[in-house]
Amino acid sequence: MRIGLLTGGGDCPGLDAAIRGVVRVAEDEGDEIIGFRHGWRGVVDGEASSLTTADTKGILQQGGTMLGTARYHPDEHTGGVDMVLATIDRVGVDVLIVIGGDGTLGSAHQLALSGIPVIGIPKTIDNDVSGTTRCIGFDTAVATATEAVDRLHTTGESHDRLMVVEVMGRTTGWLGLCAGIAGGADAICLPEEPTDLDKLAHALQRRHDRGSTSSVVVVAEGARFEDLTGSNCHRSAGEVVSDGLAARTGYETRLTVLGHVQRGGMPTATDRLLATSFGVAAVQAAHTRSFDTLMASIDDRIELVPLAEVAVGPRPVPKYLLDVARYLTVR
Amino acid sequence: MRIGLLTGGGDCPGLDAAIRGVVRVAEDEGDEIIGFRHGWRGVVDGEASSLTTADTKGILQQGGTMLGTARYHPDEHTGGVDMVLATIDRVGVDVLIVIGGDGTLGSAHQLALSGIPVIGIPKTIDNDVSGTTRCIGFDTAVATATEAVDRLHTTGESHDRLMVVEVMGRTTGWLGLCAGIAGGADAICLPEEPTDLDKLAHALQRRHDRGSTSSVVVVAEGARFEDLTGSNCHRSAGEVVSDGLAARTGYETRLTVLGHVQRGGMPTATDRLLATSFGVAAVQAAHTRSFDTLMASIDDRIELVPLAEVAVGPRPVPKYLLDVARYLTVR
Amino acid sequence: MRIGLLTGGGDCPGLDAAIRGVVRVAEDEGDEIIGFRHGWRGVVDGEASSLTTADTKGILQQGGTMLGTARYHPDEHTGGVDMVLATIDRVGVDVLIVIGGDGTLGSAHQLALSGIPVIGIPKTIDNDVSGTTRCIGFDTAVATATEAVDRLHTTGESHDRLMVVEVMGRTTGWLGLCAGIAGGADAICLPEEPTDLDKLAHALQRRHDRGSTSSVVVVAEGARFEDLTGSNCHRSAGEVVSDGLAARTGYETRLTVLGHVQRGGMPTATDRLLATSFGVAAVQAAHTRSFDTLMASIDDRIELVPLAEVAVGPRPVPKYLLDVARYLTVR
Amino acid sequence: MRIGLLTGGGDCPGLDAAIRGVVRVAEDEGDEIIGFRHGWRGVVDGEASSLTTADTKGILQQGGTMLGTARYHPDEHTGGVDMVLATIDRVGVDVLIVIGGDGTLGSAHQLALSGIPVIGIPKTIDNDVSGTTRCIGFDTAVATATEAVDRLHTTGESHDRLMVVEVMGRTTGWLGLCAGIAGGADAICLPEEPTDLDKLAHALQRRHDRGSTSSVVVVAEGARFEDLTGSNCHRSAGEVVSDGLAARTGYETRLTVLGHVQRGGMPTATDRLLATSFGVAAVQAAHTRSFDTLMASIDDRIELVPLAEVAVGPRPVPKYLLDVARYLTVR
Repeated sequence: MRIGLLTGGGDCPGLDAAIRGVVRVAEDEGDEIIGFRHGWRGVVDGEASSLTTADTKGILQQGGTMLGTARYHPDEHTGGVDMVLATIDRVGVDVLIVIGGDGTLGSAHQLALSGIPVIGIPKTIDNDVSGTTRCIGFDTAVATATEAVDRLHTTGESHDRLMVVEVMGRTTGWLGLCAGIAGGADAICLPEEPTDLDKLAHALQRRHDRGSTSSVVVVAEGARFEDLTGSNCHRSAGEVVSDGLAARTGYETRLTVLGHVQRGGMPTATDRLLATSFGVAAVQAAHTRSFDTLMASIDDRIELVPLAEVAVGPRPVPKYLLDVARYLTVR
Repeated sequence: MRIGLLTGGGDCPGLDAAIRGVVRVAEDEGDEIIGFRHGWRGVVDGEASSLTTADTKGILQQGGTMLGTARYHPDEHTGGVDMVLATIDRVGVDVLIVIGGDGTLGSAHQLALSGIPVIGIPKTIDNDVSGTTRCIGFDTAVATATEAVDRLHTTGESHDRLMVVEVMGRTTGWLGLCAGIAGGADAICLPEEPTDLDKLAHALQRRHDRGSTSSVVVVAEGARFEDLTGSNCHRSAGEVVSDGLAARTGYETRLTVLGHVQRGGMPTATDRLLATSFGVAAVQAAHTRSFDTLMASIDDRIELVPLAEVAVGPRPVPKYLLDVARYLTVR
Repeated sequence: MRIGLLTGGGDCPGLDAAIRGVVRVAEDEGDEIIGFRHGWRGVVDGEASSLTTADTKGILQQGGTMLGTARYHPDEHTGGVDMVLATIDRVGVDVLIVIGGDGTLGSAHQLALSGIPVIGIPKTIDNDVSGTTRCIGFDTAVATATEAVDRLHTTGESHDRLMVVEVMGRTTGWLGLCAGIAGGADAICLPEEPTDLDKLAHALQRRHDRGSTSSVVVVAEGARFEDLTGSNCHRSAGEVVSDGLAARTGYETRLTVLGHVQRGGMPTATDRLLATSFGVAAVQAAHTRSFDTLMASIDDRIELVPLAEVAVGPRPVPKYLLDVARYLTVR
Repeated sequence: MRIGLLTGGGDCPGLDAAIRGVVRVAEDEGDEIIGFRHGWRGVVDGEASSLTTADTKGILQQGGTMLGTARYHPDEHTGGVDMVLATIDRVGVDVLIVIGGDGTLGSAHQLALSGIPVIGIPKTIDNDVSGTTRCIGFDTAVATATEAVDRLHTTGESHDRLMVVEVMGRTTGWLGLCAGIAGGADAICLPEEPTDLDKLAHALQRRHDRGSTSSVVVVAEGARFEDLTGSNCHRSAGEVVSDGLAARTGYETRLTVLGHVQRGGMPTATDRLLATSFGVAAVQAAHTRSFDTLMASIDDRIELVPLAEVAVGPRPVPKYLLDVARYLTVR
């Protein structure tokens, strides 16, 4: 077979591990791999070149993607789908393996509806692609954010202090929730439930009244707030919390904005294992012509679910994890 | 309620995170926690003391267990079960939360059959407790072993060299398999399938004939071998592979024995999240009087399965992971 | 001897390692250790308690300080020095070992001039205490900031992007300079030399014109700028660079503010070795009654230099390191 | 200028950072760089190719050496020096920058005596090259070994146990000494002072009698022992200690052999800074025609010392560090 391969959407650790898995297994099976540069854009523009096992040497441990990526959806541009079809025809690709988040995979499903054979692999540090319990990049992002929370705990300074750390997560709070619990945060502000800053300020004051000199607050960038006036519209969620708590408690606050640090770095062993397994499963799916499917990690297995599943929208955080957080943070 | 808590079996990272979860949630619910020292031995000997949230400050990130542990099974000693009953009666414990591997949890189930209310939390770096897909400690051990494999890859030396690393895993190869794939090992020797050293030596030679100057071989301590004479009976699996491959290939071999390094260190974020969630679920199970159960991580949920499940024996590695390894190592 | 011990100024990793070193060696020598809480404030307030080897178990690997710290200088408060003298007299302390940055150590020297026997150990993630080449906490902070720079490099996204990371360093650029070089930053903005944003924007554009899609810029919080109008007075140096470069280049910029993450976490091996060696040397200095001295790391030795040296003011970054940075960043 | 570059001797982290530094600065200065493969062997065999900044992209963070290395000394082979001269003449190299340990650098000095312009950069995880306080690779190896010691500390198991870890260091104990202190080892066995196993066993027993259940012993592979019979000739130092202490104390012992794990992995920030600075200094030395010199890290500066200095022999560990270890381990 001739297998096309691309990575789309935002960067994350583990993309190269998936590419390596696909290429090595496909080569082993006698297939040829064509890598497209910069996601769907490379398919539209015909930026393609052969990928061999030799090209994947040493990339298992790397962050990022050797193929480049872009946030571009051919189905949203006039003529985009036709250009994809034209490239696939010209290059002679039998199937496209598409590694991406809900945007990139959504486009993949639209193209499948136009008759293009596609297979999807889910990746996003937000972990909210529907149909799979884990996406490539999430485990590493949680590890990175947790390490930041860990570091903020160690303070011996004698005054009351609130350490605020803003993590990614615009729509869902997977990252903030998991890093907050794993790091032992004292409070977690998420998109899922609006934060009442007055109530949070009081809860933190009670904690300090009982003897704590420092608290750590994890804030997802998409955190929502009760009763905020328009003056906050240009400020990040981290700034809203940092300034809002300072004003309400009189404590010093210190803000860390992790930013793209969360998208980079060496993937964890768990992410590499997941990405490699997804890559192997995708090549196997290509051989059984199981198109328009998503490789999904479900209960220690890799399953094939319909790619249409992705369109269900962002997968919500589990209720039990919200409960765990509620028990272990201030109230 | 008055909740007894103990950790049994071998050490691993994440035990303290589970203890912290149990104690904080129970205290929040108005329960009292009694910690027993050194696993079942502390129950038999009545080594018990109160545990409060203050005692669990700063332990989330720690390896090991603040309660101590031991490999001791009351049901295998005459009068052991009676002494457990006596302690529970005397101390006035309503339920025992038992954190352990199959041995410790097996004893817990035996005691449940004698009428003692127990709830189990699975931990083992071998990840082979039946009934749950993940055990506390496994993710960290995989991370540790993978990091060792990573380090062994970087060699610029010009001669043929085999880097052998022996990892834990006497009965099942979960750790070696996952760290081998995640670390990109060139060969993996497991308890699951006997290794043919002649065949492996040839496969590695072919790899070097194609230009590699160095290969990494992961060996589980319980790896089995084809056609080995008795002279190997006193040598570790790592030594058998290291010496056996040196003799067959003429290459230099270098052996790393990770040993207890795999049982130590700060737990990963994933292990802390799992351990904390298990701890919360166990207290909830105590309140619903769901005794003789095992907290199980299944498909992004915590479920309660019958503790008898543990007796099914070591949970085997998934076939698909063996396939992934087969594709990505030498043949 | 009866040795008083305190940690003052901002938090940093390695303080506990120094405390452990002092306590274990002193105990071994038959001395008694009195720990003062929260720096000089604890001496003024008489917050003192005995410290033994048992108290220091497990702290070598910890960040922060078990004694607490504060930014308080007795010599700057009316009656402060007298209260220090009173406490020392009452508690019966023969010598005070003071772990701190230039503020804390400056006070120590002032007290020495009042006849109080003090010995200083330098710590600061800014590494700018005069008289020593290394201070406790610096190596760890450089490691932390470098890891952030590492993570920002891995981007496969196809558009022009500037990753800006703000690190600590108000007066001197040790941290930004070393982390920038070690992390391979494309540009470094320091307090030492005013940054010309126009020139920097052009240099980065040239780099991108030659094919780069992403650049990393390290900005010390005390970075200075050419020709900036007053409108920037309320913005952090990171924001000035991030917004300033976005406006000048049209590239997307992404800002990471590391904040107190740089003061936390497990100390590196190098910091633990330094801190332990300083602790041992300080007890030895106490026994030889070498008061009013600073433990200094000079060329693989620990030397005793006059504590007055600290007053020379912040130790500048070496010219050769600025040269190294100039060679390896854009111009 | 036309600058030849090679890396010789054993692998270590930071070699690529030095290569990157040399190449980027030289290119910036208008020089041409010729990289020789596999150390001196590549010079003898004429295995040379151009190196440009593009070749060094992404290598700063890598372990190992992109040029390959070998343990080969041209001055010890008949005609070796002539072949070096021939290659240098043929390729037209104005100066050779040689990155290596005492063996490789010793050969460099011999070649300098034959009129070949050489400049040396010291690297070895043993840190024992004379003339410099730090060698590339040492800081990372200490970090790796310290992390192993850290992990061995966390044990909650209730019986007496000795955790033994064998680290590299055949002639000098730099690595074992620094990792032992930084990791808080309970005992350290070095090549510098013969270990009396009877005495050590008694000291550890006293420690356990006072309540410890576990001790960590760091053993350099070149550790020497008092009164050992010939039966130990085929056993590693780690095995001698592990078995010897088990026999004398009756405690369980567990052996970790770190092996080549210590030569691999991502270099620490400190190693990258040192390696980069050495690389810059070497190109500057080339331009000032300061041949037959060694780049030396001395007291926060890079100095040029005569390459002959290397021949003084292995640089001993500082006495004060032995004292620090003596204070902080069992006696």
